[in-house]
Amino acid sequence: MSRYPHFSFTYKRTSQKHAGRRGSLNTPHGILETPAFIFCATKAAIKAATIDQVRACGTQIILSNTYHLMLQPGSKLIKKMGGLHKFCAWNGPMLTDSGGFQIFSLGHGSVADEIKGARRHVDRKSTVKISEEGALFKSYIDGKKHLLTPEKSIEIQRDLGSDLMVVFDECTPFHVDKNYTAASMRMSHRWGLRSLAEFDRGNDGKQALYGIIQGGVYEDLRKESVDFTNDQGFFGVAVGGSLGASKDQMYEVVQMVLPRLLPERPVHLLGIGGVRDIFSGVRQGIDTFDCVHPTRIARHGWALVKGGEKERINLMNAQFREDPNPIEEECPCETCTTYSRAYIHHLLKAKEILALQLVTLHNITYMNRLMAAIRQALETDSLDEEEKKWLSGLDGS
Amino acid sequence: MSRYPHFSFTYKRTSQKHAGRRGSLNTPHGILETPAFIFCATKAAIKAATIDQVRACGTQIILSNTYHLMLQPGSKLIKKMGGLHKFCAWNGPMLTDSGGFQIFSLGHGSVADEIKGARRHVDRKSTVKISEEGALFKSYIDGKKHLLTPEKSIEIQRDLGSDLMVVFDECTPFHVDKNYTAASMRMSHRWGLRSLAEFDRGNDGKQALYGIIQGGVYEDLRKESVDFTNDQGFFGVAVGGSLGASKDQMYEVVQMVLPRLLPERPVHLLGIGGVRDIFSGVRQGIDTFDCVHPTRIARHGWALVKGGEKERINLMNAQFREDPNPIEEECPCETCTTYSRAYIHHLLKAKEILALQLVTLHNITYMNRLMAAIRQALETDSLDEEEKKWLSGLDGS
Repeated sequence: MSRYPHFSFTYKRTSQKHAGRRGSLNTPHGILETPAFIFCATKAAIKAATIDQVRACGTQIILSNTYHLMLQPGSKLIKKMGGLHKFCAWNGPMLTDSGGFQIFSLGHGSVADEIKGARRHVDRKSTVKISEEGALFKSYIDGKKHLLTPEKSIEIQRDLGSDLMVVFDECTPFHVDKNYTAASMRMSHRWGLRSLAEFDRGNDGKQALYGIIQGGVYEDLRKESVDFTNDQGFFGVAVGGSLGASKDQMYEVVQMVLPRLLPERPVHLLGIGGVRDIFSGVRQGIDTFDCVHPTRIARHGWALVKGGEKERINLMNAQFREDPNPIEEECPCETCTTYSRAYIHHLLKAKEILALQLVTLHNITYMNRLMAAIRQALETDSLDEEEKKWLSGLDGS
Repeated sequence: MSRYPHFSFTYKRTSQKHAGRRGSLNTPHGILETPAFIFCATKAAIKAATIDQVRACGTQIILSNTYHLMLQPGSKLIKKMGGLHKFCAWNGPMLTDSGGFQIFSLGHGSVADEIKGARRHVDRKSTVKISEEGALFKSYIDGKKHLLTPEKSIEIQRDLGSDLMVVFDECTPFHVDKNYTAASMRMSHRWGLRSLAEFDRGNDGKQALYGIIQGGVYEDLRKESVDFTNDQGFFGVAVGGSLGASKDQMYEVVQMVLPRLLPERPVHLLGIGGVRDIFSGVRQGIDTFDCVHPTRIARHGWALVKGGEKERINLMNAQFREDPNPIEEECPCETCTTYSRAYIHHLLKAKEILALQLVTLHNITYMNRLMAAIRQALETDSLDEEEKKWLSGLDGS
């Protein structure tokens, strides 16, 4: 019997100009049309929106974080409640990460900054101890020590019952040398094998496992990681670790990886959610993206807008005080069909939490519309034209 | 031409046992079936729910507060945006208060405590100066001084465009003597006349004005206030001022007022929202109620439940950690048809703002179901039986 009897991935490449592909990923909770954006329900909730609203915004797939859920409320409780899908009432495809990303970011502050190379001071020893066995860390809730191993991560993800699981890895920071990156990558490979072995021990066919490509910004290491991962029986592949310090470097790192990957496996790019980066990644053959960005900036009043001077506007800005227009005229979301920018501006000024909900609904809808437009453009080989519609007002930065 | 060409109120009394009445209040934004509960959208928002959700919870009518909106974003801005209905996208009946209630509570802390007699220390002089002209107060936002007069309050409510407006009054605290209460009441009567005169100057037929009955806990003053108010051309009447220090005293105060009121006018009881108090008020002939209670306690994790040992449960409580049941099995709201108590408990523990939204949706639905059940019970003269269903587990306190 196949390792992944209830999963399949089909795709077609439609362009001579780039490696973008239009795919369909079958899961036990339905089909995910790709390229797709995965929204972060970190603690089993998209913070400012109900799951009905998330669905109504056109969402196909969400993810939750093993690290947060293992600490609160605990994966055994979620299992007892019927699994994560039932717990948070999401009936579509769902991904869980391995917990590594968050654990290794504890010493760094912002995880995203670290991955993207923006943070300089690394002091991970203070909170996380890494050994061949796994990662020993303290809970941010009660200070209690936890050891997360590849086996434990898979067990937790099995309790959660996500469709797509990810192997446990060390999330290598940007500012370590090549030797550290190489050693870390090889340990992550060994952890990947242990993750897969544990996966096989409890495989009921309802979940699929993604491997992770490490190797930092080093081409030889990335190739080594791709070759290793291709040889293992993963269903999909995630591009992880440091993606460099700039958009150009991220492009280069992804380019070191994608052409060598087994084409039949779906590819996820971890933690990337900017519009320009998504178009770039799609051209390189990325199938899925995730990022807290669209929902996080919403809670600070930033609304995503198509084809403006900037990719986003802040509705706190005084210029919107008397603006009777919706965030976006053409947007079909509950927010844009119901409320003006002036109203949301008022809510933000008055610190009314409804504002967070309204901008969240818009930004989720925006990302889903973006991905739908990208899928459509792939069908008709018109990705360049489509990109111009979304980024028309932006400079090249 | 009638002062209120687009408003009418009809009712029927159905019981020999009490004065409860089943009514219909016609407004330019639709019919309000009474008895009804009015939800507080203080700053033009039910904090944790979109207006579509508020409607889906069965809501007939909301209110906003003149005091908050005059300070932020300002009534002129709301007028410019097409009025309060359009601004917050509520297309049903809406009430605005006069601003008095909030202004006079500035010196007291909790408004509700003051009205209900629970607060002892009155220091209103520090922030509010009252004269025959009106109330001079400082904005809580920027410290700027504002003078609110009866004329100004009506002008603001006209800018807001609510269906039901309320005259400007001094909200007499509980712990003042009878002389103060009497003098305050008579000034409120003069303010009521000025409010009505200002109302008439700009009356376009699309709004209706409520007078307010003052007089504290003193029977002769309450009767004087009723007689005065009956003589003026108000559309409806609100029972305001101090309602005493206990539920018994509140009953007595309402009883001093209701039997003397002109029966053709709808009667609103200000700031009362407990289930037992609502049943009591309905029996006395109250048509509408308002209170921040159902939505405010929701944001602290308290869910209203029918017929339990208590009127409400706090989902933060550890007993709900593994409770797979909805808040209420029979409740048709989005929360109860989608999520378990265990999930909401988790959200509250994890400080996820989705929890506030979910409990808010339930509590709004609960109040609307309560009022629908009360209206039905009035039709069939079975209010006692209905009350037992809602309060079965409660002691007599």
